[in-house]
Amino acid sequence: MESISVIITAGGTGKRMGIDLPKQFIAIAGKPILQITLERMNEILPDAELVLALPKEHFELWKNLCSKNDFHLKHKLVAGGVERFYSVRNALRETSGSFVLVHDGVRPFFSKTCINGLIEGLHHADAVVPTMPLVESLRRGSVDESISVKRSEFFSVQTPQAFQAQVLKKAYEQDFSSHFTDDASVVEGIGTNVHMTKGNSENIKITHPVDLHIAEYLLKDLNKAKTE
Amino acid sequence: MESISVIITAGGTGKRMGIDLPKQFIAIAGKPILQITLERMNEILPDAELVLALPKEHFELWKNLCSKNDFHLKHKLVAGGVERFYSVRNALRETSGSFVLVHDGVRPFFSKTCINGLIEGLHHADAVVPTMPLVESLRRGSVDESISVKRSEFFSVQTPQAFQAQVLKKAYEQDFSSHFTDDASVVEGIGTNVHMTKGNSENIKITHPVDLHIAEYLLKDLNKAKTE
Repeated sequence: MESISVIITAGGTGKRMGIDLPKQFIAIAGKPILQITLERMNEILPDAELVLALPKEHFELWKNLCSKNDFHLKHKLVAGGVERFYSVRNALRETSGSFVLVHDGVRPFFSKTCINGLIEGLHHADAVVPTMPLVESLRRGSVDESISVKRSEFFSVQTPQAFQAQVLKKAYEQDFSSHFTDDASVVEGIGTNVHMTKGNSENIKITHPVDLHIAEYLLKDLNKAKTE
Repeated sequence: MESISVIITAGGTGKRMGIDLPKQFIAIAGKPILQITLERMNEILPDAELVLALPKEHFELWKNLCSKNDFHLKHKLVAGGVERFYSVRNALRETSGSFVLVHDGVRPFFSKTCINGLIEGLHHADAVVPTMPLVESLRRGSVDESISVKRSEFFSVQTPQAFQAQVLKKAYEQDFSSHFTDDASVVEGIGTNVHMTKGNSENIKITHPVDLHIAEYLLKDLNKAKTE
């Protein structure tokens, strides 16, 4: 049986939200988003080791929130870096699992089916990411010159992204490149083929103010499903 | 001064909603989505000619909804085709404006700023579409082999898409191709360069069940802004 480590990154500064409190700490129905994410991960993967990467200046804030909310779920806390790349690299050193999942702290709504698909996929792949087909048409280019591209060939990528631990660790020995927009692009840097599995449409990345309202609705739905 | 025609297409069958009533007819806060879209377009462009393309089998349903909701905004009704392409082609024959906007009936939340940007753009371009940067990473490929692509080069395309009438009419003389995923791709087929302008993040395409709740929230927000 494989052992699983989950890295949760939460380095956001909340700029796109137009408020000072970084979005991962904003409460939905009384709970910080980050707490909801960690609890949900633990619910689906109760045996997984949880490693949380936060900017050092948020450690105090996070610990206060945890104690205020009586949140005692075991997790390692590691200091994030200037780029997400460095946060994941730091967190990786603290993982002991044979499989590693890397997840955005502001995505609390991944499904159990999605997680199962990732773990299942790792039995015959080095890297598996959850993706969704695109709802809108896609263009490539600049303001005054652009071309349409064939939407059906492209997929929107969610997290968690799942990896064989030794592959991800090797990939993170590379120097940082601005092409690394997610972990899949980092393992590609050492020639690893990335498989795709089906994500779930609720698994939004809480980014804009309207997303908080969507999140509130999704959370109600989730809690309702649990009590039914 | 230019004259403006707006084509609204609503050919959806509601498959992705998991219900029988096509999404354009679903009511939010008591009003069918399609009615909200038409009213909003009329609010922003009160002088524009409105042409609505609906599958013929929905004419009766739509007329009943209009009379039930006391909705008397003037609009031409034309029969849609099997593909969206044929719906727009049919509707185009009924337009008299020098500028034509083509819009999805299930997108009621375009902003006034977005519309102004499109009309302004048509003063020095043949085609202008509203776009947004992508929130999520992008991959290209198939389930067991995929590559990351540089997200910053790609843009998600919304509607309304805006065109010089004579350009759009010429483009729609082409034979249908499955590459035509939106109107911008149709005018590209005759070598027209497509400009991009900023869309607005609220301008969602109501597609999945969760979108109905988002729409409810956005509608409240819109009505609140009006009364303030």
